[in-house]
Amino acid sequence: MKNMKSTIYFDRNPVISSFASVASKKEAEGSLANFFDHIEMDPYFKKETWEQAESEIQRIAVTKALEKANIQSNAVNFIFAGDLVNQCVCSTYALRDFNIPFLGIYGACSTMAEGMLLAASMVNAGYGERATAVTSSHFSSAERQYRNPLSYGGQRTQSAQWTVTGGGAVIIEQNTEQSQEQLEQKTEKKIIVKSATVGRIVDYAVTDSSNMGAAMAPAAADTILRFFKDTNMKVTDLDYIVTGDLGYVGSELLLNILRQDDMDISFQHRDCGVMIYKKDEQDTHSGGSGCGCSASVLSAYFLPRIKSGEIKNMLFCGTGALMSPMLSFQGESIPGIAHAVLLSQQVDSVKLMLRGASAGVFAR
Amino acid sequence: MKNMKSTIYFDRNPVISSFASVASKKEAEGSLANFFDHIEMDPYFKKETWEQAESEIQRIAVTKALEKANIQSNAVNFIFAGDLVNQCVCSTYALRDFNIPFLGIYGACSTMAEGMLLAASMVNAGYGERATAVTSSHFSSAERQYRNPLSYGGQRTQSAQWTVTGGGAVIIEQNTEQSQEQLEQKTEKKIIVKSATVGRIVDYAVTDSSNMGAAMAPAAADTILRFFKDTNMKVTDLDYIVTGDLGYVGSELLLNILRQDDMDISFQHRDCGVMIYKKDEQDTHSGGSGCGCSASVLSAYFLPRIKSGEIKNMLFCGTGALMSPMLSFQGESIPGIAHAVLLSQQVDSVKLMLRGASAGVFAR
Repeated sequence: MKNMKSTIYFDRNPVISSFASVASKKEAEGSLANFFDHIEMDPYFKKETWEQAESEIQRIAVTKALEKANIQSNAVNFIFAGDLVNQCVCSTYALRDFNIPFLGIYGACSTMAEGMLLAASMVNAGYGERATAVTSSHFSSAERQYRNPLSYGGQRTQSAQWTVTGGGAVIIEQNTEQSQEQLEQKTEKKIIVKSATVGRIVDYAVTDSSNMGAAMAPAAADTILRFFKDTNMKVTDLDYIVTGDLGYVGSELLLNILRQDDMDISFQHRDCGVMIYKKDEQDTHSGGSGCGCSASVLSAYFLPRIKSGEIKNMLFCGTGALMSPMLSFQGESIPGIAHAVLLSQQVDSVKLMLRGASAGVFAR
Repeated sequence: MKNMKSTIYFDRNPVISSFASVASKKEAEGSLANFFDHIEMDPYFKKETWEQAESEIQRIAVTKALEKANIQSNAVNFIFAGDLVNQCVCSTYALRDFNIPFLGIYGACSTMAEGMLLAASMVNAGYGERATAVTSSHFSSAERQYRNPLSYGGQRTQSAQWTVTGGGAVIIEQNTEQSQEQLEQKTEKKIIVKSATVGRIVDYAVTDSSNMGAAMAPAAADTILRFFKDTNMKVTDLDYIVTGDLGYVGSELLLNILRQDDMDISFQHRDCGVMIYKKDEQDTHSGGSGCGCSASVLSAYFLPRIKSGEIKNMLFCGTGALMSPMLSFQGESIPGIAHAVLLSQQVDSVKLMLRGASAGVFAR
């Protein structure tokens, strides 16, 4: 069986030129409180329903990202967006007024990574100057849709995760500086999207919708292994390998699965679901989840550290549980998926490691 | 305000190398009965639930398309899929076993056009040799989710459309023949994806979820107008302008809206929702709808006619109503979206009309 590579190599070095994060009360009491661009303490975001509040999260994230880039919405060619609410309507209603050509995506909690992957693909190919990726989640819109009405007050299991009320947006644009020399003269580093590894649907027959970390960990392992195989990079080439929201349970599983493949990422691994809340104080059990988890943690914590030069190379691996309550009721298992993008200050970060890569795609 | 163009020009002429359509009983009694690749008279597709049946539609469509191309699933680099069921699970469960890197999309009934747009974008950029787009819908899974339980037996209004039980898959691959001369020597024509116009979210404040044609028509008009503006093509350059599923009500609205912009497409216009059922005999009121409507009609009826040489140039404009029952209950209107791809036998179909297009994107 021919092994097709599924990592895309972005030869034109598209850059993340702007980004913004939004969070709410619980996140503002968490470990990353100081890093969000916008904190709204009212969980309704001054709207009337949880879904409208979630739309507001995306609206604020995109508006902030445009402001920070000092551009108008008409300077963006494409926007990729999705969320957890049925029919992804929080995205639709959030973005309706921006008038940006819109491509709806659904990757569950991997949505931010999927959006960045596609946005970078479009920009690197020259189809547009700029593309945006945005996503959100809201504890209350997710809880009532996926689990129980909030007023039911059900007991949560220890493996359950807490859906983040928040979101993030990134703007990816064509790079005007091509050489490493030009980049190194700058004190403020560029955030280059160097490659993207498209996830496969991986199903280990997990049926417990209160243990999504276990459902997603095998998919994360599959994508991370393929990334290293496709690029010939080594674990030590990266400062961080950041998973979306495996939480405590899923993160431990991921490390164990990779150890079986003789890969130890324990030093480089961070998980957005683990990072966002305070373990002992906030009673979130296995950590945070939701599309807004990895979107806000990436935009609030990691991207500024690439820009400042603190982080040179990191793999951002968004993870999603492709579940629906209806199919769970029908007895189905929960497949997982993970998409990964390599973020780097350096135009030659991957080139060094590549054996015979051609423009646009890794050699097969 | 700078007018950004949002039509992508595919300079490397990606081709639709294979395609397949699937339908069920009502569609087999309709106008296009003789053209589907696979007809399953059991609405359960020999499965236990409507959702499992819908997954089976996608599984059959992809399997057929791979068979017709005489390739295995590992020859496909990416698959784009989505559907109407919450969290797009019919796609997930259908494609789980194919092991193809998967990118979930949500475009409501415009999903086929969105998937083709993105698949062609990836292949044209050289990120992979082949990409597949697939989607489905099922009358019974849609009806109980969007409207009423089937057993309720509610009266349908005349503007309502009938969700198609069916689907389609296309495989888009890199073109090996570049010149028009080489193409013309062949009796069996290639189906080239020449351009793609990304839709914008258009909201005319329609709130009647039994009149989706009215919600989608303005979006179709917006995309069609931008296509002609971006490409400098004329209506008469096209044999057909095919909309996804505006139905009878929406189609008339579309023609009226375009007439206000001095554009008459009445000779070229066809609508998949109008075409699929027999108007007087099948009691579907305003026609067919659902992701599977345009996917199956395109694959069953139009693509073979491009291949045979009967159709030279056509615009396939998928239309979607970005609604959800929950947000409708909250009083929201129904925004529409439409994505369009230009399909052509000719590598120079657009080039003739272009004024200063560069590779990959129309000049701004």
